[in-house]
Amino acid sequence: MLGEKGVGYELVRESPWERRDEFIDMNPAGQTPVMAETAKGLLFMDSSAICEYFEETVDKAPMIGGTAVNRAEVRRLVAWLDQQFYGDVVAPLMHERMRKRLVHRATPDASMLREAMKNAHSHFDYLDYLLDHRSWLAGPTLSLADLTAAAHISVADYLGGIDFKGHEPMKRWYAGLKSRPSFRPLLSERMEVISPPEHYDRVDF
Amino acid sequence: MLGEKGVGYELVRESPWERRDEFIDMNPAGQTPVMAETAKGLLFMDSSAICEYFEETVDKAPMIGGTAVNRAEVRRLVAWLDQQFYGDVVAPLMHERMRKRLVHRATPDASMLREAMKNAHSHFDYLDYLLDHRSWLAGPTLSLADLTAAAHISVADYLGGIDFKGHEPMKRWYAGLKSRPSFRPLLSERMEVISPPEHYDRVDF
Repeated sequence: MLGEKGVGYELVRESPWERRDEFIDMNPAGQTPVMAETAKGLLFMDSSAICEYFEETVDKAPMIGGTAVNRAEVRRLVAWLDQQFYGDVVAPLMHERMRKRLVHRATPDASMLREAMKNAHSHFDYLDYLLDHRSWLAGPTLSLADLTAAAHISVADYLGGIDFKGHEPMKRWYAGLKSRPSFRPLLSERMEVISPPEHYDRVDF
Repeated sequence: MLGEKGVGYELVRESPWERRDEFIDMNPAGQTPVMAETAKGLLFMDSSAICEYFEETVDKAPMIGGTAVNRAEVRRLVAWLDQQFYGDVVAPLMHERMRKRLVHRATPDASMLREAMKNAHSHFDYLDYLLDHRSWLAGPTLSLADLTAAAHISVADYLGGIDFKGHEPMKRWYAGLKSRPSFRPLLSERMEVISPPEHYDRVDF
C-alpha cells in the first residue's frame, strides 16, 4: 500500500514469537506490523489501523475508495482475508513449515498441511467467483482487498502451500499484482533458513 | 454504536455454528454480525466494516473521531479487543460455558476457565492503565474502542468470567457505560438456557 501511494519506507525484521522486551514496550499486543513514523515521533500498530491512517493522510491511489458501500465491501474482504483466509490457510502453513522448524525443531504434520491446502482451494474458489464478476476483488478498481489477498497468498506460496491449478481467474489476477512495482520488492525478501519454491517471485508461474 | 448515533435497528438472533444455508448465502464467512439495510436492499458484514460505514454515513456522535492519529488509536484498540481480548478471554468462555453446554452437551474444562480468567486480569490491568491516563479508552471522548470493550466485557460477565476486584478504574468506566441509554437495552437480552449472574445488568455491581 505504501508503494502504491508513493510513501517511502524501510522494513525492519521482527520475530514476534521472541517477545523482545523493546518490541512489547512498543506494542503491548506483541504483534507485527508496528510502524514508526520517526520524523513525527509517532507509533502505529495493527495492519488495518495503519492502512486506514495512510488512506486518510495520503490522497494518491485511494485503496479504500469509492462510495460508503464500496468501502464497506473493501473492508469486509480485508477482514475475511485477515481472519478466515489467514486462520485457515496461512497460519497453519506458518506454524507447520516455519515455526516448527525455526522454534520447535520439529517436522510438519502432513495432515495439517493437507487440511490447509484443502481450505486454500475452497477459498480460491471464492476469489475466482469474485474475479469472474469484477475486475478486482472488491470492484472495478484495485483496492486494499487485492493487496491484502496478494500479501497472504505470497506468504502461503513461499511456504509451498499454493496450487494454482484450476484457479485461472485468481492466477491471472495474481500475475498482474506480482508485476506491479509496489509488489516486486516484497517478492525479493527472504525468510531465514527457509527458501521459497523456484516459481515464487516469477511473474510467469 | 447505532444507539449512540440514533439509528433504529432490530436485532435478529443467529447461531452461526448451525451454519444455516440462508445465513451462509448472506455471508460466505459464516460469521455474525450481518446487517441488512432493508430499505436500500443492502447487506453488510464484519463488525468493523459495519461500524466504519455508519461512521461515514451518520454524522451524529462520531465514534472514530478526531485527528488521523486519534482515529488510528481507536482502530488499534478495537483490533486489540476484537482479536487479543476476544481470543484470550471471551472465546474460551463462550466455548466452555456456552457451546459445550448447548452444542456438545459437555461440562466446561476448569483449567481452561482459570486460564481465561487469568488472561482477563492481565488485560484489565492494561485497560486500568489506559483509564488512569485518559477519560475514555482511546482518548478524551467516548469512541468505538469503549463500545467494543464494553460489548466483549458484557459477554464475559454474562458467562460469569469477570472479577472486577482490583480493577477500580475499569469498574467505574464500565458502570458509566452500563447506564447509557444505548447500552441498557443490550443488557436485557438473554441467551437461550444460560442465565447471567445476578449483578449482570445492574449499574451498581
